[in-house]
Amino acid sequence: MLPGSQLGVKAGKKAIDQALEDFLANARATLDAIDPNLAPINGAFTDFLAGGKRLRPLFALAGYLGAGGDLTKPHLERIYKAVISLELLQACALIHDDMMDGSDTRRGAPSIHRRFEEEHRKRDGVGDSASFGGAAALLLGDLALVLSAQALHLSGITNVQLERVNPIFDTMKVELMAGQYLDMHAGSRREVSVDDALKIATYKSGKYTIERPLHFGGALALTTPELFTIYSDYGIPLGIAFQLRDDLLGVFGDASLTGKPTGDDLLEGKRTALISYALSHMNGQSASDFKKRFGDRNATPEEIEQMREQINNSGAVEFIEKLIAEKTTLALTAVSNPRITAAGQELLTELALAATKRSA
Amino acid sequence: MLPGSQLGVKAGKKAIDQALEDFLANARATLDAIDPNLAPINGAFTDFLAGGKRLRPLFALAGYLGAGGDLTKPHLERIYKAVISLELLQACALIHDDMMDGSDTRRGAPSIHRRFEEEHRKRDGVGDSASFGGAAALLLGDLALVLSAQALHLSGITNVQLERVNPIFDTMKVELMAGQYLDMHAGSRREVSVDDALKIATYKSGKYTIERPLHFGGALALTTPELFTIYSDYGIPLGIAFQLRDDLLGVFGDASLTGKPTGDDLLEGKRTALISYALSHMNGQSASDFKKRFGDRNATPEEIEQMREQINNSGAVEFIEKLIAEKTTLALTAVSNPRITAAGQELLTELALAATKRSA
Repeated sequence: MLPGSQLGVKAGKKAIDQALEDFLANARATLDAIDPNLAPINGAFTDFLAGGKRLRPLFALAGYLGAGGDLTKPHLERIYKAVISLELLQACALIHDDMMDGSDTRRGAPSIHRRFEEEHRKRDGVGDSASFGGAAALLLGDLALVLSAQALHLSGITNVQLERVNPIFDTMKVELMAGQYLDMHAGSRREVSVDDALKIATYKSGKYTIERPLHFGGALALTTPELFTIYSDYGIPLGIAFQLRDDLLGVFGDASLTGKPTGDDLLEGKRTALISYALSHMNGQSASDFKKRFGDRNATPEEIEQMREQINNSGAVEFIEKLIAEKTTLALTAVSNPRITAAGQELLTELALAATKRSA
Repeated sequence: MLPGSQLGVKAGKKAIDQALEDFLANARATLDAIDPNLAPINGAFTDFLAGGKRLRPLFALAGYLGAGGDLTKPHLERIYKAVISLELLQACALIHDDMMDGSDTRRGAPSIHRRFEEEHRKRDGVGDSASFGGAAALLLGDLALVLSAQALHLSGITNVQLERVNPIFDTMKVELMAGQYLDMHAGSRREVSVDDALKIATYKSGKYTIERPLHFGGALALTTPELFTIYSDYGIPLGIAFQLRDDLLGVFGDASLTGKPTGDDLLEGKRTALISYALSHMNGQSASDFKKRFGDRNATPEEIEQMREQINNSGAVEFIEKLIAEKTTLALTAVSNPRITAAGQELLTELALAATKRSA
C-alpha cells in the first residue's frame, strides 16, 4: 500500500478538522485574555467553523500529496496546520458574502450578521440591532482573514516553504476579492453574458476553490513549475464545473440539503451562467416576465416554481449539465498525468466527483 | 551628523509615499489585467491612499531606526517597502470603520461606500445604490487587508526578518479587530466607564497605532526583547494620549482641518473617555438632556454647541488635557533610554509631538 493511500477525503477532513479545532482553541484564549466582552465572537467562530466540507484545505492537501510531499508524521502535521488557513479565508468570504447578499441563514443556522443582531436585541442594546449585527459580521470576517494568515505562520512550516507559498496565497486572495467584486458588479448590470458569468466562475471557483489551493499544496511540497501547470489544467475546468453545479443547486436544490432557502439564487437575483443562458433563450415576453420576479426576496413558492419552469423550458439546464460533464472530463484527463503521484491522482479524482455531484 | 538624522518625519513620509505609490501601480496593473470592470477599485484606492499622515509606517520606521537597523540604501529601501503594509492595513480599518459608522466623508472626500453608491447611481445600476456601495466598500476593505500582507512579502526583506515580524504583525491585527469590536460594543451599552474607554484606547491606539508599529520596526532590525519593552513603555501611553487628542478633536475640532463634520463624535454617539467622564460629572437632568441629543445624526448646530458646553462645564476637557499631558510625559521619559539610538530618540520625540498636538 502506498503511504498516501490512507489520505482519502475522509481521513484528510478529520485531520484538518482537528488542526482547525486546536488553532481555534488558541485563538479563543487570546481573545478571552483581551476582554470578556469578546466572548460572543468566540462562540460565533466556533459554531461557524464547525460546519463546512473543508474543500479548499483538501485540495491543498491533494496538491501536496500529488507533488510527492513528505508524508512522515511531523511534516504532514504541519501541512494540516497550514492548510486550515484556507478554511479561515473561506470563513471570511462567507461571512462577508452573507452580509452583502442579506442572507439570513448559512448551513441552516443564522448567518453571522443575524446572529449578532439577535444578540444585540436580546440584551436590549443601545442603537439599531441590524446595524450592530452588520458591524459585528464585518469585524468577524476581517478577523477570520487575519487568523487565516496567523494559522499559516503558526503551522511550523519552514521559511523556505513559507517563501514559496506566500506569493501564491497573496495572488489567491487578490483573485478572490476581484472575483467577488465582479460577481457583485454583474448583479448590478442589465446584461450579463454567459461568458461574463463563466469568467466570474473562473475567478471565484476555478482559481479560488481549486487551482490556487492545489498550487498552495504544491508550493508546500516545493514542487516545480511543470506541476503547477498540470494543476491549473485540472483546477480551472473543475472549478467551473463546481460553480455550475452550485448554480443549479441554488435554483433547484433541496433546502434541507443546501442549508439555504429554496430557490435562493432566484430570490437574490444572482446572475449565474444558468440564468444568463436561460434569459437569452427565452422569448421577449417570457424574459420580461422572468425579470419582474427575479431578485424579489418576497417571491411566493408558486412564483419560484414558475421561474424554475421557465429556466427548464429554455434548455439552460441541459446546457449547463453538458458543460459540467465536459469540464469534469477535462479535469479528470489532466489528473491522469504521471507527474502526479498515484496517491495524489486518487485523492484528486475523489475530490472531483465530490465537488460536482448532484446534491449539496 | 548621524546617518539617521536625515530621517525626520518629512523625509520618512516622502520615502513611504513613494514606496506606496510604486506598490499601488503594480496592484493596479494586476487588477486591470483581470477585468476592466475593476477600474473603479483602482481609482478609489489611489485617491484614498493619496491622503494620510503615514503615522503607523513612520512609527515602524522609528522602531527600526531606534533599534540601530541597517541604514544603507538597499536595506532602508526594503524597510520603506515593508512598512507600507501598515498603511494598507489602516486603509482597511478606515474603509470598514466608515461603513460601520455610516460616515459620509473621509479626509474631506466621500467615504468609499458613498463613492461606490454614487458610481452605481450614475450608471443607473440594477438594484439599490446604497447596498452596492456598502458591498463595494466591504470588498475594498478586504482587498486592502490582502494587499497589506502582499506588500510585506514583496518588500524584499529576508526570511529571517519576515520570521521575526510575522508574529508581531499577526498579533497587531488581532488586537486591532478586537479593539474595533470593543469600541462598537461600547457604543451599544448604556454604561461605559472612563476605564472601559481607556481600555479601548489602549487597543485601538496604544497598541495598534504606536506600540505594535514600533515592534514591527524593531523586529525588522532583529532587535532584542529588552527594546520591545522600552517601546511598549513609550507606545502605550503615547497611543492613549493620541486617542484622547482625537476624542477632543472629534467634539471640538475644526471641520476644515479634521475632514469630518463638526462635532462628528457627538452625531455618531461615540462613547469616548471624554464623554464617559463628562456624563459621570453632570447632574441627573443635564446628563439626561445630553443623552437625548447624543448620537442623533440630525442634531442642529445649536444642539451640537449645547452638548459641547455641557462637556466643557463638566470639567471633562481639563481632565482629558491633564491625562494627555501625563501620558505624553511618560512616553517622552521612556524615549530618553540610551538603548534607543540617538537618531531614533529624535524621530520618536518628533512623532510624539506630531501625534498629540492640538490640531488635526
